[in-house]
Amino acid sequence: MSTIPKIVILGAGYGGILTAQRLQKELNYNEADVTLVNRHDYHYFTTHLHMPAAGTDSIEHTRVSISKLIDEFKIDLVKSNVKEIRLSDRKVILQDGTLSFDYLVIALGGEPESFGIPGLSEYAMTIRSINSVRLIREHIEYQFALYKLDESRTDRLNFVVGGAGFSGIEFVAELADRIPRLCKEYDVDPSLVNIYNVEAAPAILPGFDSELVEYAQNVLVKKGVQFKIGIAIKECMEDGVVLANGEVIRSATVVWTGGIRGNRLVEAAGFETSRGRVMVDEYLHAPGYEHVFIIGDNSIMLNPEGRPYPPTAQIAMQQGVTCAQNVVASIRNKELKKFAFSNKGTVASLGKGEAVASAFGKKYKGWVAAQIKKLVDIRYLFIIGGIPLVLKKGRFL
Amino acid sequence: MSTIPKIVILGAGYGGILTAQRLQKELNYNEADVTLVNRHDYHYFTTHLHMPAAGTDSIEHTRVSISKLIDEFKIDLVKSNVKEIRLSDRKVILQDGTLSFDYLVIALGGEPESFGIPGLSEYAMTIRSINSVRLIREHIEYQFALYKLDESRTDRLNFVVGGAGFSGIEFVAELADRIPRLCKEYDVDPSLVNIYNVEAAPAILPGFDSELVEYAQNVLVKKGVQFKIGIAIKECMEDGVVLANGEVIRSATVVWTGGIRGNRLVEAAGFETSRGRVMVDEYLHAPGYEHVFIIGDNSIMLNPEGRPYPPTAQIAMQQGVTCAQNVVASIRNKELKKFAFSNKGTVASLGKGEAVASAFGKKYKGWVAAQIKKLVDIRYLFIIGGIPLVLKKGRFL
Repeated sequence: MSTIPKIVILGAGYGGILTAQRLQKELNYNEADVTLVNRHDYHYFTTHLHMPAAGTDSIEHTRVSISKLIDEFKIDLVKSNVKEIRLSDRKVILQDGTLSFDYLVIALGGEPESFGIPGLSEYAMTIRSINSVRLIREHIEYQFALYKLDESRTDRLNFVVGGAGFSGIEFVAELADRIPRLCKEYDVDPSLVNIYNVEAAPAILPGFDSELVEYAQNVLVKKGVQFKIGIAIKECMEDGVVLANGEVIRSATVVWTGGIRGNRLVEAAGFETSRGRVMVDEYLHAPGYEHVFIIGDNSIMLNPEGRPYPPTAQIAMQQGVTCAQNVVASIRNKELKKFAFSNKGTVASLGKGEAVASAFGKKYKGWVAAQIKKLVDIRYLFIIGGIPLVLKKGRFL
Repeated sequence: MSTIPKIVILGAGYGGILTAQRLQKELNYNEADVTLVNRHDYHYFTTHLHMPAAGTDSIEHTRVSISKLIDEFKIDLVKSNVKEIRLSDRKVILQDGTLSFDYLVIALGGEPESFGIPGLSEYAMTIRSINSVRLIREHIEYQFALYKLDESRTDRLNFVVGGAGFSGIEFVAELADRIPRLCKEYDVDPSLVNIYNVEAAPAILPGFDSELVEYAQNVLVKKGVQFKIGIAIKECMEDGVVLANGEVIRSATVVWTGGIRGNRLVEAAGFETSRGRVMVDEYLHAPGYEHVFIIGDNSIMLNPEGRPYPPTAQIAMQQGVTCAQNVVASIRNKELKKFAFSNKGTVASLGKGEAVASAFGKKYKGWVAAQIKKLVDIRYLFIIGGIPLVLKKGRFL
């Protein structure tokens, strides 16, 4: 019987891939069995999903086969859906099988949070996976095709995006870039198309520098985005949304980017959660479980001011690195490392050639910020796949 | 007050465009006013629609701006929908205006004929216009996107094409070519996709040479098309079709190519019609109206064996040429010319690199027939637009 410890990583997003890659590098031969479980056989770039969702970039620039990122001689890859995490049994129940673990890394990613707004989970689409953004892209084109068969249905040319955080803003920017091309392709008068961005908070890009927020909003207004700021969505229906001020926007296309919460599997496992997230300790342990680590969107960590870090790709990646180090340290009975977030800055793309960035203690906007966005993307490709992946998936135009 | 005769041409399809171009060439300066009325500002190649419908070629290879085909100094172009033809008043009522005429050329094209099959006009899509084929293309892609969100719905991967005449066969062939690419793009197992071609007649491509029919059917079966021949569609529902043998095929996508009939405006004008078509005399006159010509899908002419010629692009074009000559002869009080159909042969495309053709008294299949199909397309582009149009719209791959 094997006495090698079994490490199971759930999820191959930013956190899970980084954990797997670092474990692969750190562990000695036969020091542990590592299994990476993911629902798809590909890893995707969540921060890039707004482009294929709008149809401004291809799916193939947005994902990479996991087998290209990990060494399958060193790590077992299981393509399956996780059904249940049984902490007391140290088992994970998959759709087609069961895995037992000695160390578990929960990196499952979040889920859209609808805040109980009626109709949102039934009628709104979300930007959260390759499948969900392919649906958005096809749904939008389908509306144009349907409109051409009944031009009285101008509501088919209304597009509502709920939420003006990073995903919402990046998506409306791409959509605004795409609309002129769709209008040309379908012979539609562009003046009939409306893109609405509805946000309950008093400003777009909450938490971002106010000068950059103002710049971003101006860029998007010039691109044709109509903002409804400080107004919540009260209800989502099959044929539109009702806003808190009573206004009704008729639309067959509502995309909800208003928030994410933790994965329901994490709640179901018995952890104490807040919106599905678990407050982890400084070593990324789930509270009370020295052999269970939670990273990425399912974890909460507080910044020095005592407020939770927002769930981003950046923090998930950094947590993945520390998590791998701490799993190895646990196996070797060495001292664990405290996680310390190093803020590399924030960039929001505003469509072709436009962005806002706050990085290296400075503010950037326009073309320079757009280059920073590209560098961030390229840096990530380099981290996970080296030069070959940069050449294969990078966008240099 | 002008005493120049007014010629109105309704429709800029194969018949209408050829009539307009020949009138433009034949008429002397100020000899007549010619107005061409069309619902779109473009002419499209009906015989090419199966490709953009399946998504194997672009819309832009399937249409050309009418202003590129006619000289607007010589012919007035009116983009409008025809609402009514008032024969006794010599007027045509448009959606936004009225035109009076001394000579009328009705070249409006046909409409899908559903033969009273319940549900067909509500739930089936048809290959008849740029708008209708854009819808088919988008609808098919949308089914793949929706399937990926709920993989229990394998019915979304069933595609039913009603009718195995030229349109039906050419469309299933393109669809079969497209499916592998769609499967790759959407990560769908190709073995889950079913293309059904249902035909009530005892064979595909009715009227075509039996050796070529057999060849065509074998090619398509190898491409994965499942034939239901000699079986009528009894009913079309939102979620599939019921066949005459009781079989139910669940599908969200039914494309009906089973037949065409004349335009309802022609019936409504008071002509005696058979399935909306008018039996014209040998000069292409509507019976009893020396100043009204009907060509293309709305006309019936009998072949020497006393059977109606099938409505094709080929006959519509030839009628357009004779029609223009006869309008000019009428104005000049010259003798009119009898229409004589000259059969140039028939080609059915079977997708990439495959076709069957019956031309010059010979049978062709495979690559050679596919080249003939291309030559036919190029010849048409050359007739209506010369070398520039061939270079712009021709497909040489």
